[in-house]
Amino acid sequence: MSNLKSKFFEVYDVLKAELLNDPAFDFTDDSRQWVERMLDYNVPGGKCNRGLSVIDSYRLLKEEKELSEDEIFLACVIGWCIEWLQAYFLVLDDIMDNSHTRRGQPCWFRQPKVGMIAVNDGILLRNHIGRILKKHFRDKPYYADLLDLFNEVECQTACGQMIDLITTHLGQNDLSKYSLDDHRRIVVYKTAFYSFYLPVACALLMAGENLDDHSNAKNILLEMGNYFQVQDDYLDCFGDPEVIGKIGTDIEDYKCSWLVVKAMELCNKEQMKLLNENYGKDDPSCVAKVKDLYNTLKLQDVYLEYERKSYEKLNEEIEAHPSRAVQAVLKSFLAKIYKRLK
Amino acid sequence: MSNLKSKFFEVYDVLKAELLNDPAFDFTDDSRQWVERMLDYNVPGGKCNRGLSVIDSYRLLKEEKELSEDEIFLACVIGWCIEWLQAYFLVLDDIMDNSHTRRGQPCWFRQPKVGMIAVNDGILLRNHIGRILKKHFRDKPYYADLLDLFNEVECQTACGQMIDLITTHLGQNDLSKYSLDDHRRIVVYKTAFYSFYLPVACALLMAGENLDDHSNAKNILLEMGNYFQVQDDYLDCFGDPEVIGKIGTDIEDYKCSWLVVKAMELCNKEQMKLLNENYGKDDPSCVAKVKDLYNTLKLQDVYLEYERKSYEKLNEEIEAHPSRAVQAVLKSFLAKIYKRLK
Repeated sequence: MSNLKSKFFEVYDVLKAELLNDPAFDFTDDSRQWVERMLDYNVPGGKCNRGLSVIDSYRLLKEEKELSEDEIFLACVIGWCIEWLQAYFLVLDDIMDNSHTRRGQPCWFRQPKVGMIAVNDGILLRNHIGRILKKHFRDKPYYADLLDLFNEVECQTACGQMIDLITTHLGQNDLSKYSLDDHRRIVVYKTAFYSFYLPVACALLMAGENLDDHSNAKNILLEMGNYFQVQDDYLDCFGDPEVIGKIGTDIEDYKCSWLVVKAMELCNKEQMKLLNENYGKDDPSCVAKVKDLYNTLKLQDVYLEYERKSYEKLNEEIEAHPSRAVQAVLKSFLAKIYKRLK
Repeated sequence: MSNLKSKFFEVYDVLKAELLNDPAFDFTDDSRQWVERMLDYNVPGGKCNRGLSVIDSYRLLKEEKELSEDEIFLACVIGWCIEWLQAYFLVLDDIMDNSHTRRGQPCWFRQPKVGMIAVNDGILLRNHIGRILKKHFRDKPYYADLLDLFNEVECQTACGQMIDLITTHLGQNDLSKYSLDDHRRIVVYKTAFYSFYLPVACALLMAGENLDDHSNAKNILLEMGNYFQVQDDYLDCFGDPEVIGKIGTDIEDYKCSWLVVKAMELCNKEQMKLLNENYGKDDPSCVAKVKDLYNTLKLQDVYLEYERKSYEKLNEEIEAHPSRAVQAVLKSFLAKIYKRLK
């Protein structure tokens, strides 16, 4: 494990210990054990890209200056808040989607004795963010901005999840309800705000910046988030399962994927009929017919062209950004995702 | 409807309109309709005691001074935030408890096409509070305190819900896991903080007070909340269904009620056996046996004595409070609940 990552995990232990001894609540032994188990199961098991990117971004914003121990600690704390936020979304999303596994283990709500208590555990995860921020940032001049930011981004994510749920559940038997606009809107709200914008916005606040002055960077990051999700949709179908670590099921699951939306844009009446008849069916022969259609429509080429153009456009926008330091942050994000295979 | 109540409901319409046009989210027609329906179904259908008590409390704190239109509006806005918080808890609690009805209509998650989308709707309700407070209180000196207060109380409520769920689910076959201490802890955290302390704390912040100076009032309000819930438990079994508007089922539901906890304190070995065999069974003859035992143990007298003593103690503590204005607030709460029959 890298030095930074092991530092980051030390901070997890500190935060967990603080939460388990929060004076605002009079824990019983049972409830303290419950929370500890719930945290360990749900918070630290991911790749922590979002959390770690707060520290990276903050470092780049401060340019050559060496960060103090205290600054690194605080950046890690905010990084963990984003990981807590993610854990909260995932615990509840898995309930809503009736999912089975997450990060290679059964979903939390499927653990024995958990069940619907997981709804409350999700709430607790969300509440922990407020507790953590209060403990470590209450006296900072940007404290209220930080709370506002987390609240706003959480709200945008929930709104994205709402249109995703409405589109998927209500449009169940009518593929034509999915459009490229819908896809973009869902992706930007549901994923891009908290995965791309939030870490950088936190770093900007720590560096003393006013977020109103950075709508430009925000738009670029949201666009990157959109591009990232298009990649995800592409890899779900065309990626190597060995490399991405799972077998994609977007076709079976009737997902509003970039591929199916693009396919509808390009296909003729007959092909649309085929899509309608086979998309969203849990039957290998139906899935194969959809994939055949994707190949007929040359979606792999369409994707490569989309990727090239997105990259070009993002790069241009970054180059045009007035601040060198912000440019560096945006470039580091883009470099991490461009042409990724997993 | 009283003048105040109709004013209060006008503010609901204002807040709803603002949320449905929140610039932080790019609504589709479907999603805007969804949120409007969800709000109307879940937010304004209760008695609004908590919300209205913010305005009452604020008025009493300002003593004889007439409130301005703006002050009344802001007090209503905070009042609605508490009603939003309550709606959020109820939507999610009903899912966790697998309930059927709420406020005389089917639970939201049982509405056609809603189901588990209700989990996300609960989150949205919670997020609306942040949006409302930001819009109307961002420039107030007590803005950060207000956010901290809502966060802390929400966290305490979720912790109370957690120990309630753990006690009920894990202690399912062992009544002796319920103690008076557990009962008190669950009640104080799950109900008293947001129903009794929160409205007054909001009013105190609006009046420019520092909440650290009011731990005394807080403790009195939490004690009142406890007393209120004991009444609730009592009325569930001994109240008049015509008056309370429902038929109590705490015995069938294996609830950690004040009555069963008190019964265990008073009963002998044989009676404990009877309780163990009959509590939590959905069978009228079992329920009757439990009620007979309650009568044998004279629980109605025990309750009346508890009520007398609680009232006396609360009154003494209120009289001892140094501020006349805070005294008036506390007395008005106590008067509303003492000897209530519903």
